[in-house]
Amino acid sequence: MRTGPAGGRATPAGLATVGAVTTPVTATTAPALVTLDEIRDAATRIAGHAVRTPLLPSPWPGLWLKPENLQPIGAFKIRGALTAVSRMDPEVRARGILAHSSGNHAQAVAYAARLFGVDAHIVIPDSAPERKVAATRALGATVELVPLAQRFSRPAELAATTGKAMVPPFDDRDVVSGQGTVGLEIAEDSAGVGGVDTVLVPVSGGGLLAGIAAAVTALLPGTKVVGVEPELAGDAAESFRAGERRAWASADTARTMADGLRVDSVGVVPWEHIRTQVHDIITVTEDEIADATRRLALEARLVAEPSGAVALAGYLHHADRLPSGTTVAVLSGGNIDPALFRSLLGG
Amino acid sequence: MRTGPAGGRATPAGLATVGAVTTPVTATTAPALVTLDEIRDAATRIAGHAVRTPLLPSPWPGLWLKPENLQPIGAFKIRGALTAVSRMDPEVRARGILAHSSGNHAQAVAYAARLFGVDAHIVIPDSAPERKVAATRALGATVELVPLAQRFSRPAELAATTGKAMVPPFDDRDVVSGQGTVGLEIAEDSAGVGGVDTVLVPVSGGGLLAGIAAAVTALLPGTKVVGVEPELAGDAAESFRAGERRAWASADTARTMADGLRVDSVGVVPWEHIRTQVHDIITVTEDEIADATRRLALEARLVAEPSGAVALAGYLHHADRLPSGTTVAVLSGGNIDPALFRSLLGG
Repeated sequence: MRTGPAGGRATPAGLATVGAVTTPVTATTAPALVTLDEIRDAATRIAGHAVRTPLLPSPWPGLWLKPENLQPIGAFKIRGALTAVSRMDPEVRARGILAHSSGNHAQAVAYAARLFGVDAHIVIPDSAPERKVAATRALGATVELVPLAQRFSRPAELAATTGKAMVPPFDDRDVVSGQGTVGLEIAEDSAGVGGVDTVLVPVSGGGLLAGIAAAVTALLPGTKVVGVEPELAGDAAESFRAGERRAWASADTARTMADGLRVDSVGVVPWEHIRTQVHDIITVTEDEIADATRRLALEARLVAEPSGAVALAGYLHHADRLPSGTTVAVLSGGNIDPALFRSLLGG
Repeated sequence: MRTGPAGGRATPAGLATVGAVTTPVTATTAPALVTLDEIRDAATRIAGHAVRTPLLPSPWPGLWLKPENLQPIGAFKIRGALTAVSRMDPEVRARGILAHSSGNHAQAVAYAARLFGVDAHIVIPDSAPERKVAATRALGATVELVPLAQRFSRPAELAATTGKAMVPPFDDRDVVSGQGTVGLEIAEDSAGVGGVDTVLVPVSGGGLLAGIAAAVTALLPGTKVVGVEPELAGDAAESFRAGERRAWASADTARTMADGLRVDSVGVVPWEHIRTQVHDIITVTEDEIADATRRLALEARLVAEPSGAVALAGYLHHADRLPSGTTVAVLSGGNIDPALFRSLLGG
C-alpha cells in the first residue's frame, strides 16, 4: 500500500463502485508554486533534446493538438526528467540516477541519464509490460524488477545505500517546471492560432497539469486550464470538487485502460497548482477514451496511448462541460501496446 | 491515356514485367530552375496556414523524420496549392479554381480555395476511393466524377469554357516552389540536428523532390537529395539512370499500393531539377513499403499512407545504396484507407 508524500494513506476498496472509497491526504504545509522563471530555465535546458512540438490543426473544429507523443521516448515525461537531471549537482549526478516507474517516466529518466553519460537504475514492478521494460533497457538503464509492494520501498533503500539521486515522477519542482515547458510553448504559439481559450490536459500525478497551469496562468491569464481524467481513476476530479487532495485505492485506479493515469493521488506540489490555477477537472469513460484513441489515428494521423487520448475524449464527448472557444488538447504520449492499438482501431 | 506536358505519350503495357515498356518523353526546351527566392516567397505565403513541421527524432539511429502527414489535409500538397493560389491574379482567382486529382492534391486545392473564399471545381476519376471524394467535398469543393479516360480532357475543357484557372499537381513553378518550403525548413533545422547529410524524398510527379532539391542545393550544398520510388512505379528511377525523362504505362504504375505515387512520368519542371540537383533515385518493394508503414505507426507513432512511407522504406531496407551520415526521411502524407492500415499493422 502506498504512503503518500505527506503521510496520507490509501484504503483498499472493492471494484463495485467508481471511487466510492477515498481517503483525504493532507499536506502539512502548502508548497510554493513553480515560477515562470523556473519554467523558462527548463526550456533552455531541454532545447535541442526534447522536440519543440507545434500546435497541430485537427479535424475537429476549434481544436488544436499538442503532440507530445512525438517526443523521443514517446511522451512529455522527457521534459521533466531532462530538467531534473540537468539541474542536479554534477557530483551528485555522477553517482548515477534512480527512478521508479512502470511507464513512460522510466524511459524518460533512462534517456536523460544516457544524455548526461551517467548510470540510471530504474525500479519497475514485475507486473509491467515486457515492452516497456525492454524499451527502458534499450536506453542503457539497469532495470530492477520488484514485486508491486516494493515499488516505493526498494528505490528508497537504493537511495540510502548507493547515494544515487532520485528523479520523482511528478511530485517535484524540477519535474513540474520541466513539464511546464508544454504550457510555455502553447503560450508562445497562442497568437498564431488566434488565441487559446482552453487547454485540456490529462491528469494522473498532476505534474503535467500543474506545470501547464503555472505557465498559462502567468502568460495567458484569460485562458482556462482543464484537467481530464478517466472516470475509473477519478481521484483528481474528486479532489478538485472536494477542495482537498484525496487518494484512491490502487485496485480502483488499475481498472482504466489508461495505464499512465493510474496514480492513486496527485502530488503535493501539483495539488497546490491544481487548487489555485486550474479551472476544472472532468472525467471520461473507457469507451470515450477508446473512441478518441481510434479517431486520433484514423483522422489526425497520430498514434496515442489511451492515457494520451483522454484530453481529446473530453473535447469530443463533453463539450457541454467545457468552456467555449479555441481549445488545445495535450496528447501526452503514444506508447501503446500494438495488440491494444489494433483492437481499438476496430475492423 | 495521358499526353505529357511536352507532348510525350505513354504506351500501354502488360503487367508481366517491372517497367519493361517505357517511352522517352522529351521536352522541347529545358525550363529554368526554381530559385531560392521563389521558395522563400512561398514560405511567407503559407506561414500560418501550413504547419511548420519540425524534424522529429526517430527510433532508427541517424534518421530524422519530416512529418508532412501532420499538415491540415494530411499531406505536403497543401504547400504547393497554397502557394499557387496565393500567387494568382486576384481577378483570375475570383473566377474560381480548377484541379484534377485522385488524391491529396484535390484536398489541397479545395483547402486553398476555401481559404481564399473562391470556388474550387475538382475533377476526380470515378474510380477514386469514396473517402477521398468525401474529404474533398467536405472542404467545400464541387467534385465532378469522370471516367478515367477524361481525367485530363475534362479539366482542359472546363478551363476553356469557364475561365477558371488550373492548379497543376506538380508540373508548375509555383507548385514546385511551394513544395520547396519543405527543403527550406530542413535547411533551417539542419544545424539543430548536427547537420544533414542526406534527404530522402518520395517521388511521383517529382514536385516535392524538385522543390526540396532546389532549396537544399542552394542552402546545404554538401547535402545529397535522393528520391525513393516504388519499384512497381519506377519511371523516375529509370529516367534518372537513362538521363532522360521516361513514362510508364498507367496500367503498370497502378500496381503499387502507394496510390499517391502512380503518376506515369515526372513533370518537365521537376525533371530539370532531378537531372541537375538530385544525387540518386532508388526503388523499394511493396513488402518494404508495408513494413515501413507498419513501423512508422508502431515505433514512431505516426500514421503514414504507403506513399508517405517509401522514404523510410528506403532507409530501412537499402542502407547500402544510400550515402552515410545523418539522414532526413520526408513522410509525405498520411491519408491511408482504414482497412488497409489495419491489415498492414498485422495481428
